[in-house]
Amino acid sequence: MTHTLASVATPVGVVDLAVARQNAERVVGYCREHGLTWRPHVKTHKSRDVAALQLAAGARGLTVATPHEAEVMATVCDDLLLAYPPVGADKLARIMALPGSVRLTVALDSVPVLEGLAAASRAEGRTTGVLVEVDAGLRRVGVQSAGEAVELGQRVRELGGVEYRGIMFYPGHIRGPIDDQDADLARLADWLAALRESLEGQGLAPDVVSGGSTPTLWRTHEVPGVTEVRAGTAIFNDREQIAVGSAAAGDLAYSVLATVVSTAVPGQAVVDAGSKALAKEERGGEGFGSLLERPGIRVRALSEEHGILDLSGTDWRPRIGERVRIVPNHVCVSVNLQDHVLVVDDGDGRLWPLEGRGRGPFAPSPVAAAGAVP
Amino acid sequence: MTHTLASVATPVGVVDLAVARQNAERVVGYCREHGLTWRPHVKTHKSRDVAALQLAAGARGLTVATPHEAEVMATVCDDLLLAYPPVGADKLARIMALPGSVRLTVALDSVPVLEGLAAASRAEGRTTGVLVEVDAGLRRVGVQSAGEAVELGQRVRELGGVEYRGIMFYPGHIRGPIDDQDADLARLADWLAALRESLEGQGLAPDVVSGGSTPTLWRTHEVPGVTEVRAGTAIFNDREQIAVGSAAAGDLAYSVLATVVSTAVPGQAVVDAGSKALAKEERGGEGFGSLLERPGIRVRALSEEHGILDLSGTDWRPRIGERVRIVPNHVCVSVNLQDHVLVVDDGDGRLWPLEGRGRGPFAPSPVAAAGAVP
Repeated sequence: MTHTLASVATPVGVVDLAVARQNAERVVGYCREHGLTWRPHVKTHKSRDVAALQLAAGARGLTVATPHEAEVMATVCDDLLLAYPPVGADKLARIMALPGSVRLTVALDSVPVLEGLAAASRAEGRTTGVLVEVDAGLRRVGVQSAGEAVELGQRVRELGGVEYRGIMFYPGHIRGPIDDQDADLARLADWLAALRESLEGQGLAPDVVSGGSTPTLWRTHEVPGVTEVRAGTAIFNDREQIAVGSAAAGDLAYSVLATVVSTAVPGQAVVDAGSKALAKEERGGEGFGSLLERPGIRVRALSEEHGILDLSGTDWRPRIGERVRIVPNHVCVSVNLQDHVLVVDDGDGRLWPLEGRGRGPFAPSPVAAAGAVP
Repeated sequence: MTHTLASVATPVGVVDLAVARQNAERVVGYCREHGLTWRPHVKTHKSRDVAALQLAAGARGLTVATPHEAEVMATVCDDLLLAYPPVGADKLARIMALPGSVRLTVALDSVPVLEGLAAASRAEGRTTGVLVEVDAGLRRVGVQSAGEAVELGQRVRELGGVEYRGIMFYPGHIRGPIDDQDADLARLADWLAALRESLEGQGLAPDVVSGGSTPTLWRTHEVPGVTEVRAGTAIFNDREQIAVGSAAAGDLAYSVLATVVSTAVPGQAVVDAGSKALAKEERGGEGFGSLLERPGIRVRALSEEHGILDLSGTDWRPRIGERVRIVPNHVCVSVNLQDHVLVVDDGDGRLWPLEGRGRGPFAPSPVAAAGAVP
């Protein structure tokens, strides 16, 4: 069954496939130019079809955050990085039940998580790769020093069932405009050089140095030693990436299609995309989204099922029933709120499932698994 | 299959059924004392089982926001208020396909929506009730004056397929502490008295005056003329309601169970409940959640799958693998992110589905439909 922007039920996420393909190709082109590989984080799209598109464009492996995402993506890719510490019997059992053909690597920052993973891997007769996660400055997760990284790397070497493959970091503390990142990137390069030297001095030279966020994506080559980037948002982009300068308006591949439901209050129009379709993540004073085709018009406020378009700066007055496309502040959390996405390309649109949403477990039907990117 | 707080996969929403029942009974008790009825908004819980609990406690009818919620709740209740303007052929077709036994009322604020609803109702041979939605000060939706309310009410009377039942308002602009609402409630009472007088003068005396938010719930009787309250959040409560004073700590029936996954960064612990489990809705400077059993400990920051517990004010240092329960700022958007909820009461817990999540359509299996509140 085909659907169009005029006929599909709203609110719904819409993916412009031509733009997504172009985004994927641009990332791969940049990575090839600089001897990097792209292992995109699927958290942004949660879709096997989009993952297949990324792999077809030249992505090498996928990054996942949850056992469910791993189960889903194992059906389209045999090289997965779980960039999240698996804690608890349930999560370990699920990743150990991934097909034996999947080359699995896990990033972690502690001995308890490492020992749990090693024991589970040995029990299953598997060898699981390990990246030692190091805190590059975000202060979220990651060991705090080169010494701790060495210690954890050595512990990996001592244990059976696991294999040391290198290190991972996430430069999420660098969120400023792309042109203002010089000092932060220089600090990051120095930090990484010292870290690598410590590891090499202890026989722990990393094969993989996994880094790269979307805000820093296009400047990754200024941090020598990085081997792969995990940038996920770059496939779709959003208002945040426009603000940072890592994407331009023409790189926006995702929006939320919404219908105007009320114009009763002067100076505004209310649409049926609220915080349960866009997610209510603020961008200081700039509202919760803006119109794809009229970027000056912002979503001033969100309730759960209401989005309020601020019409104070425009003469445009939409009618009830009119449809608009809204670019969210943060695409990943908006996609996560959709049942499916309407994919528009040439011709009519199709609904693509988002199999990686939720917590699973995932059991693909033979029919569903057969549907890949056309 | 039974589950416990120690065994269930995290992150997951947890409902304390005894507290939810007590919350429902307290609302019904208040309403009976003041000659009001409770028509709870199901957006908070999206669960047929929780709706059945509310009805068993004495709720009279349910409030829904979407066609999907209407389809789901029509399986447990034959008196529904759609408190949202249905715009578009798809949405009209879905609400017209509700069982004929369902007494349906729709709130709306414009002639185009009214005319669409009337035409669809006539085509289906149905009579749909209408509440004229009036803006009480939130400036979101609703006609702007008594004159406009009269006009729209008269238009309802002229059309076949629809029946004028009264008015609806949402006092969402009153969000301050319950003890500071005097002036706002006095203004609201004056406004409503004048509105009712205008309507009565034109032969449009409202049978139903639907009002009531959770923050104003316990003072609804100070606004004479209100006949029903739709308060939804009151079934579970959250940090927002604690701050407002409409609920106390003992009234918190919902939390998100999470597992500690990293303690690498000093002064904090990272749990596996991030913005995809709690929702990243800020409460100025107070973080994104707090621990149910240690309310002084807050969630300082959220990434998609990471919640950062601020341990700077405590000596408590959780181990990796330890579990905590987090009270979100806004319960409705957190519940909407769960696949299901773990319901704990006496004895072991069960997983309850949240059938009203997503956009549907909903087709209950005979087996699933048979499962009601034990």
